[in-house]
Amino acid sequence: MKKLLLLYLVIIGAYVLYALNFFYGKHQSAGAGESAALVGSLDEKYVMVTFQSGIDYWKSVIKGFEDAAGVLGVSVEYRGSTQYDVREQVTVLEQVIAQKPAGIALTVMNPEALTPSIDKAVDAGIPVVLFDSGAPESKAYSLLATDNYNAGATAARTMARLIGGRGEVGVVTLPNQLNHQQRTNGFRDTIRAEYPEMTIVAIALPNQLNHQQRTNGFRDTIRAEYPEMTIVAIEDGKGDRIVSRDAALAILDAHPNVKGIFNTDANGGVGIADAVRLRQRQNEVKVVAFDTDKVTLDMIRSGDIDATLAQGTWNMGYWSLLYLFHLHHGLVTPDSGQTADASPLPVYVDTGISVVTRENVDNYYVK
Amino acid sequence: MKKLLLLYLVIIGAYVLYALNFFYGKHQSAGAGESAALVGSLDEKYVMVTFQSGIDYWKSVIKGFEDAAGVLGVSVEYRGSTQYDVREQVTVLEQVIAQKPAGIALTVMNPEALTPSIDKAVDAGIPVVLFDSGAPESKAYSLLATDNYNAGATAARTMARLIGGRGEVGVVTLPNQLNHQQRTNGFRDTIRAEYPEMTIVAIALPNQLNHQQRTNGFRDTIRAEYPEMTIVAIEDGKGDRIVSRDAALAILDAHPNVKGIFNTDANGGVGIADAVRLRQRQNEVKVVAFDTDKVTLDMIRSGDIDATLAQGTWNMGYWSLLYLFHLHHGLVTPDSGQTADASPLPVYVDTGISVVTRENVDNYYVK
Repeated sequence: MKKLLLLYLVIIGAYVLYALNFFYGKHQSAGAGESAALVGSLDEKYVMVTFQSGIDYWKSVIKGFEDAAGVLGVSVEYRGSTQYDVREQVTVLEQVIAQKPAGIALTVMNPEALTPSIDKAVDAGIPVVLFDSGAPESKAYSLLATDNYNAGATAARTMARLIGGRGEVGVVTLPNQLNHQQRTNGFRDTIRAEYPEMTIVAIALPNQLNHQQRTNGFRDTIRAEYPEMTIVAIEDGKGDRIVSRDAALAILDAHPNVKGIFNTDANGGVGIADAVRLRQRQNEVKVVAFDTDKVTLDMIRSGDIDATLAQGTWNMGYWSLLYLFHLHHGLVTPDSGQTADASPLPVYVDTGISVVTRENVDNYYVK
Repeated sequence: MKKLLLLYLVIIGAYVLYALNFFYGKHQSAGAGESAALVGSLDEKYVMVTFQSGIDYWKSVIKGFEDAAGVLGVSVEYRGSTQYDVREQVTVLEQVIAQKPAGIALTVMNPEALTPSIDKAVDAGIPVVLFDSGAPESKAYSLLATDNYNAGATAARTMARLIGGRGEVGVVTLPNQLNHQQRTNGFRDTIRAEYPEMTIVAIALPNQLNHQQRTNGFRDTIRAEYPEMTIVAIEDGKGDRIVSRDAALAILDAHPNVKGIFNTDANGGVGIADAVRLRQRQNEVKVVAFDTDKVTLDMIRSGDIDATLAQGTWNMGYWSLLYLFHLHHGLVTPDSGQTADASPLPVYVDTGISVVTRENVDNYYVK
């Protein structure tokens, strides 16, 4: 009888081992599936680096980055220069590179100054993608940012909806940006070509061509799609509330029939609303602003600004991390023998624009 | 003794159940984690729809779509019109919509004809993203395609590398495309504006502005970056091997110092190589072609073509499915109150270009 018991035990033991093995094996194969899937580990740390790191504008970018980390099961960290200071941003980026993170999402305050550090990271095997503003000659894999020309086109369509597709409109922008850009390019190209021993370490020209592109998109779309609308004035607001107010007052006084004013920068919209109120023309003149600063959103709520354009900042953060994850895990190299020109990822992503009005303004306050 | 055996059996049975439970439970909890992460189910079917569905060009797009399905754990299906026939593509798309798939990735043969079906799908809650060629006025969420201007710029830099950054070059393209586009726009806009009871059901204008944009990118980059290079001729190859050969012969005969010819379409590059061989100038004249048809790749291998530009077709398929997955799972709606203008996803993705030379040509043959 003891032999029979032993036999039973052996059989049952074997069954237990089989069951363990079966389930362990299943779990293992699921595990192997996961490592090929989009599931990372908390040891994997991705770092976002900005400048003026405390401003509200980045908060939704960080939220997108964190949401992607939650979905992928990886860790993230947020760094940046506290000031609008390119030397400080370079220092922060160098500190991050020294940590050897799984990847870096960077917004570039100044391409000239940051390109050497970007290239150093990529050469060391740390993937870098750029968001909001890029460094075209760097080795970064991708740029995720607003297409400012398209943003201007969206502004034109929004204005057309507000004023019924006909009438005079004005623009308050930073119209001399293109001149500054051209002057800067001439300076830079000449130094590169003729003075190899000179180096430009920083160019403090904010936002480059953004405002020109926004204005062009607005103008071209009105010409192409709204033949009964006319742009009667393009004024310089210098990115400042008071100067933009005065520019808008000039437009209102010179053009009594003006039905709308579009502003291309984050600070001018509230100045234009001030001007419209000063002249008591709130019911006649529509205001389309740019970006979602708190004071702009408050004026959307109060009805002083009719619409503002929100950049796809959440998209910038979310898709930056997805791209870095793919690079870190080697999931995107269809051509193993690629030349230096080729990127394994899409090279440019237009993160889009959404239109903020009284109906949806509550979604845009920073939480 | 029998009682003891029974006891053993009960104990061992309980242990087996415990073991089963432990491993099953572990598997379940991994499953729960997966549902919040980027892991789908095989019940979820995403469909890709093309036209001329048998051509090699789509194979790498399909591979990207399938690779993403493997990573996400979802099912995919590939459909398309067999011919270059827009009515057939509309029929196929309507059949796919009737199946109520989890999402549709579509390349648009003709925006006018396909927009109503695209909008119908989106209105029915089926996400649609577009790849390779778009439908700007449709409700599709995103377009993933080559930026043809940037492709031309890459061609210019490739040519400059091949000829040492100085000398005369020519272009064989479809130069009258812009005229055709403008004529078509005038026709379409007038019908829309003045004849509301007329409808244009199809416009058979291949590739729209692609060739013009490639030529402009090539020209502007040479002007801006290679002051010692000159474009001495831009000829019409009509997208045909024989016509392109004759166009290249004309360039070679008229410009004895020409050092390179760039072709903007998939068929002309081999014609240019034919011309260079006919005039026995293989060592003097470099050829940069477009796309990766088998005959072009064979000529890269044999040295008759020096480089060709491969579009980021794998990226188109891979990221189309990732976008559809995010839409289907509601992972990308940062602003729940978005207006009609807003897309929860990046609206445009430049899927990039890679340069194919003898060194990496083997990676580009369709497997």
